[in-house]
Amino acid sequence: MNVSGQPYRTIWPAADGSSVEIIDQTQLPHAFAIARLTSLDDTAHAIRAMLVRGAPLIGATAAWGVWLALCRDATDSGLAHAHATLLATRPTAVNLRWALDRVRAHVGTLAPAARAGAARRLAVEICDEDVALNRGIATTGLPLIQAIAARKKPGERVNILTHCNAGWLATVDVGTATAPIYAAHDAGVPVHVWVDETRPRNQGASLTAWELLNHGVPHTVIADNAGGHLMQHGQVDLVIVGTDRTTANGDVCNKIGTYLKALAAHDTGVPFYVAAPSPSIDWTLRDGRREIPIEERPPREVTHLAGRLPDGTIATVALPPEGSPAANPAFDVTPARLVTGLITERGLCAANADALQKLFPER
Amino acid sequence: MNVSGQPYRTIWPAADGSSVEIIDQTQLPHAFAIARLTSLDDTAHAIRAMLVRGAPLIGATAAWGVWLALCRDATDSGLAHAHATLLATRPTAVNLRWALDRVRAHVGTLAPAARAGAARRLAVEICDEDVALNRGIATTGLPLIQAIAARKKPGERVNILTHCNAGWLATVDVGTATAPIYAAHDAGVPVHVWVDETRPRNQGASLTAWELLNHGVPHTVIADNAGGHLMQHGQVDLVIVGTDRTTANGDVCNKIGTYLKALAAHDTGVPFYVAAPSPSIDWTLRDGRREIPIEERPPREVTHLAGRLPDGTIATVALPPEGSPAANPAFDVTPARLVTGLITERGLCAANADALQKLFPER
Repeated sequence: MNVSGQPYRTIWPAADGSSVEIIDQTQLPHAFAIARLTSLDDTAHAIRAMLVRGAPLIGATAAWGVWLALCRDATDSGLAHAHATLLATRPTAVNLRWALDRVRAHVGTLAPAARAGAARRLAVEICDEDVALNRGIATTGLPLIQAIAARKKPGERVNILTHCNAGWLATVDVGTATAPIYAAHDAGVPVHVWVDETRPRNQGASLTAWELLNHGVPHTVIADNAGGHLMQHGQVDLVIVGTDRTTANGDVCNKIGTYLKALAAHDTGVPFYVAAPSPSIDWTLRDGRREIPIEERPPREVTHLAGRLPDGTIATVALPPEGSPAANPAFDVTPARLVTGLITERGLCAANADALQKLFPER
Repeated sequence: MNVSGQPYRTIWPAADGSSVEIIDQTQLPHAFAIARLTSLDDTAHAIRAMLVRGAPLIGATAAWGVWLALCRDATDSGLAHAHATLLATRPTAVNLRWALDRVRAHVGTLAPAARAGAARRLAVEICDEDVALNRGIATTGLPLIQAIAARKKPGERVNILTHCNAGWLATVDVGTATAPIYAAHDAGVPVHVWVDETRPRNQGASLTAWELLNHGVPHTVIADNAGGHLMQHGQVDLVIVGTDRTTANGDVCNKIGTYLKALAAHDTGVPFYVAAPSPSIDWTLRDGRREIPIEERPPREVTHLAGRLPDGTIATVALPPEGSPAANPAFDVTPARLVTGLITERGLCAANADALQKLFPER
């Protein structure tokens, strides 16, 4: 997508041929900064410290990380070490394992000398595939928005609520939850997005708002507490969120708080859609709440918060009194029964095992 | 309650005999500061700018404000002006109108020379009554916590989730939602409180955490997004929240986001209680969602946030990119069907018109 008129992806091979560049998302929306990854350790740090985040982008970054690792050590043990190191960075998103397993399976059978080159080609392929998947999600999701627009009076906006950032910054490009939104906006459908700020890391206020602002999509930032009230008062036409891991029966693990919005949508009759590219589906699981590991992140992300001072510099401030502990579970699971539909690259899919099996018969 | 070992209320007549002192809650938890109100305008500002907040405390402060106004102008028009000015400060909590109407009815029939003195005595009475009501809520609510404790293994804590601040800082003293919690803690029941930080103004992280820390009650601050997940995983035994206005049929208007927690409690089978002193009940309303005016507060409360810098000074930082608008509805309505019970000063009450009528037959 464009940043100040120039097209960007979130990750790309650097011109030097031996490193990878990323947008450092910890600095958004206050600064647009590019960071360079030159090693496995750089890559693991970038994922763990959330310079890159978002399930699809985590997967893509991990693929590049294996390449960087193999450039230095292409032995079996080097490959195993890269796989293990990157897999341990974050526990919840399934795309990470999906990408790592795919690269390992592909290059593991090759002679060590051929491995780095093959990993590089596969990383390029995984990135391009991600963009293609997201374009597929746009194609699947656009008619949902158009159908609502068709029922509106001329000039009335379609109000879409989203949680966290499942935008182009969470992927290689285009985004998942935002893909149908950008497609609708670009097609001239008047859309307006309610952006959950998404505490504690504020990915909504920091990243989704920044994306939408850059692309010119009308939006309003709200506290995470506000969405239920807006739904009760007819201010939300549909919800679209992303997913970090979707089980084979349609349970959706996504950013903490997603479950609360799904409950409110269900209670108020607002459609609740999940943009779910197939790499986010974990075909081995059938009960999200019991089976998906939920990452516990540092309490400091709840108690401390970075923002822009009036003079433009960035500062971190503490909210609670010193001495009050905090807890920080990063994801929750929305049961399939609360999901109106999964927006996949192959089409719209009911959130249940039969429908998923039918749409992905090769699984 | 005690602050550093010294007992305080949130509001009291100053020693000079002509002003009122309050705890300036906008400075908590970073500084404990006392502010002085000397006039009607001071009082209206203190309510509007939330130096005092919480439905019961707003009512009590308004009563003192009428006294301050009548000290300068005790004519009929002075009384009418004080009533109108204070009533316009905040729209949602019904205690404000309740207190103002009560003072006006009481002093309006007196000769002007007698009005200020009578208003002062009534303000004292309203404050003492508030404390008594809250002690009644403690008596009603304590057995609910004790019953859960009795089912636990020895040493296991009762986990209570609360939203916003309905603690002693929201009242004259003791608190509403916290009244049973303090009573349980003081009675030796091991309790632990999940404190919703309560965006956008962070009354949970700032005020509830500060209260509980000062009183020694174990607690953990969480993002507002986390409560549903904790309930799904058996980490919450009951929810207790306050109310800014309860309708005659048991709908509860409280801080934005309360509805989301009520939905999660309902979905996971966690009891959801509302501490509802009778002055918070609006007997004229029967449909909270349609009838209760919801205050829209400044968007800046969402986009900007004050906290403590590492050097201890207080700074305000901005979160979203410049140019992204925000919206800030301050309350939402939880339908009576999601409320397990109302904890009133007269006893536990089902959230429906019949039960409320039976408990308050004089209405």
